[in-house]
Amino acid sequence: MSQSTISNDPLTASLKEARQPSGLVVRFGPDDGLDMAAGAKLAPLQIGYQTYGTLNSDKSNAVLVCHALTGDQHVATNNPITGKPGWWESMVGPGKPVDTNRFFVICSNVVGGCMGSSGPANETSDGVPYGLGFPVVTIKDMVNAQARLVDHLGIDRLFAVIGGSMGGMQVLQWAVSYPERVYAAVPIATAARHTSQNIAFHEVGRQAVMADPDWHGGDYYSFGIRPTKGLAVARMAAHITYLSEGALHRKFGRNLQERDDITFGFEADFQIESYLRHQGMSFVDRFDANSYLYMTRAMDYFDLAREFGGKLAHAFDQTSTRFCCVSFSSDWLFPTSENRAIVHALNAAGANVSFLEVDTDKGHDAFLLEIPELFDTVGGFVRAAADELGLAETA
Amino acid sequence: MSQSTISNDPLTASLKEARQPSGLVVRFGPDDGLDMAAGAKLAPLQIGYQTYGTLNSDKSNAVLVCHALTGDQHVATNNPITGKPGWWESMVGPGKPVDTNRFFVICSNVVGGCMGSSGPANETSDGVPYGLGFPVVTIKDMVNAQARLVDHLGIDRLFAVIGGSMGGMQVLQWAVSYPERVYAAVPIATAARHTSQNIAFHEVGRQAVMADPDWHGGDYYSFGIRPTKGLAVARMAAHITYLSEGALHRKFGRNLQERDDITFGFEADFQIESYLRHQGMSFVDRFDANSYLYMTRAMDYFDLAREFGGKLAHAFDQTSTRFCCVSFSSDWLFPTSENRAIVHALNAAGANVSFLEVDTDKGHDAFLLEIPELFDTVGGFVRAAADELGLAETA
Repeated sequence: MSQSTISNDPLTASLKEARQPSGLVVRFGPDDGLDMAAGAKLAPLQIGYQTYGTLNSDKSNAVLVCHALTGDQHVATNNPITGKPGWWESMVGPGKPVDTNRFFVICSNVVGGCMGSSGPANETSDGVPYGLGFPVVTIKDMVNAQARLVDHLGIDRLFAVIGGSMGGMQVLQWAVSYPERVYAAVPIATAARHTSQNIAFHEVGRQAVMADPDWHGGDYYSFGIRPTKGLAVARMAAHITYLSEGALHRKFGRNLQERDDITFGFEADFQIESYLRHQGMSFVDRFDANSYLYMTRAMDYFDLAREFGGKLAHAFDQTSTRFCCVSFSSDWLFPTSENRAIVHALNAAGANVSFLEVDTDKGHDAFLLEIPELFDTVGGFVRAAADELGLAETA
Repeated sequence: MSQSTISNDPLTASLKEARQPSGLVVRFGPDDGLDMAAGAKLAPLQIGYQTYGTLNSDKSNAVLVCHALTGDQHVATNNPITGKPGWWESMVGPGKPVDTNRFFVICSNVVGGCMGSSGPANETSDGVPYGLGFPVVTIKDMVNAQARLVDHLGIDRLFAVIGGSMGGMQVLQWAVSYPERVYAAVPIATAARHTSQNIAFHEVGRQAVMADPDWHGGDYYSFGIRPTKGLAVARMAAHITYLSEGALHRKFGRNLQERDDITFGFEADFQIESYLRHQGMSFVDRFDANSYLYMTRAMDYFDLAREFGGKLAHAFDQTSTRFCCVSFSSDWLFPTSENRAIVHALNAAGANVSFLEVDTDKGHDAFLLEIPELFDTVGGFVRAAADELGLAETA
């Protein structure tokens, strides 16, 4: 885009489509809803998901991959909305670190999302979209919904649960809520609680969405419009936090965007400006603004130790799950210190845990990128755990 | 504020007042305008300023204090708009590190500002506000305008130029543009160029303002409304960058705001949310949205080495100014590395320079706070330089 402001767009076909499940879907009826932390019962409950590979005969080779804030279930095949490759195709697939020749990989859209699982853009039984009437979602709610899906698939114990960022929070919650159902856990670039700075950035994003008059208090669906501008600003602010200062400097520096000199105006003179605007614009085409509010809130509310008297180690008492934790040296959103706090708690609980801080300048987004050290670590850990469990080399 | 969104306010009396100069003012006539980097001539040129202390007989004890992004000329006495103390009363005043018993302190509102100097909210000779018709301002323009003020006051050489953040950029520009007019220079928590990450945060703020329909392409003055929501979001995002993660954790952590538990909603459950909303709300009462765009752009465009073939040291060739540079260990907006780059260039140019990194968790905002190490350093440097110059103990 070259204009200096972002315009609000009407509902596009692609976003309408996003309200419909893409891929597999399971619905739990009105009498079989999800009890949510907010106190509400979500019924009916709908979960959009994808699977890759083959479930073995004793159903012991299932790997649950948990997606991050704006991710979805399309982890290893093209996304039907964007047409782009799955968000973790480098990690999950045949011969990849999470090898779909050996494992049966499940990935579901989280509750509150906008890719087929129940969320604020879905219609209630009265036929009107929930909007802000949708109960506020927690990480635990997401995990409980996933457990329902895993039940539905007839799987008793997951071989592994893997995810980065908000996905890593789900991994930790799985290990705490369902310790006997998780053989191995890989939380990446995450934290056992959202920090003050994390909450601050999310609050800015929410205020940007809510400041957009086309948000209409969350009821924009019925106005046939979307708070595109506000959501784009929210995405731009968030995107900065996903990258390190070093990576920004290396990638963009003060390079100008298709011009020889500054223009003494407010156009995107600098490449970084053009890049951020593009990030904002492309995001609004694929994501529901209310879902963005709900996802950010779920992360803000996450504080795993809270139910355990503030002692994180108690959350993992007696765990038999084996853990592999990974952080990235330049990640300032979920810095190594937060990941190390998880490792310390696991150590204090006597858990089986390995930890690696990957040295990279790629910031928080590193968990989504092709970083050999990350792949070697996750692949090696998963393979060794599978061998230990006696899983066959191919499903 | 307790509501979950910020509402746009009409023009308030206080903001209208802000368009008028508060305190001293000097006007340069239509034939005596300012040649700006953008190519325009700004005429008439108006500069709002304040002075403290007494100019000595040979006019050798003048200290120019340069304000930061949203600062103003009210450095050491109550701000007439907010009623709050001057923004650097701890640093400037009788017996303070910059002692007004000894020095004659000048502080002017920068060109492009909204506290009495020519800016986008001012009216052109046709009687309509400039809006985006105001020429884009650079740090050099600000400094050239200040030089006009210094001329007007009959001062040939400034004893010292002092400032932090954007004020520090002006200090550096003074030393480069007018080396013979600056005896001593104190750039604090600043940089010789705006980095990619710096530009990114500013661009988010600008897009937040421009996304507000009440911005009206910068013409909101004639609509009798202000883009309050957008400007508040911009301020909130910026404010996070002024604090360190550690300070946020210490000050707010995950503390709840006047409630015992989370509310499962989008109110300000957390203290950090309430604090940020307050920062956004109080800012819009005192600052013009277009000025915010211009100030951020001036910083983005700052790249002192650019005119010197990319060699910062060349900018300071043959300088006889003595420098005292200060950075703060937890400042991630203008980190020590950027300040050290200035020191390295000064060293390479053979300049007289001292440098201190103050160890504090207070982040970028530390330059505005009462930090003994900062005061001791600036006070000590200024006193020693004044003694060396033979300035009397009292003016």
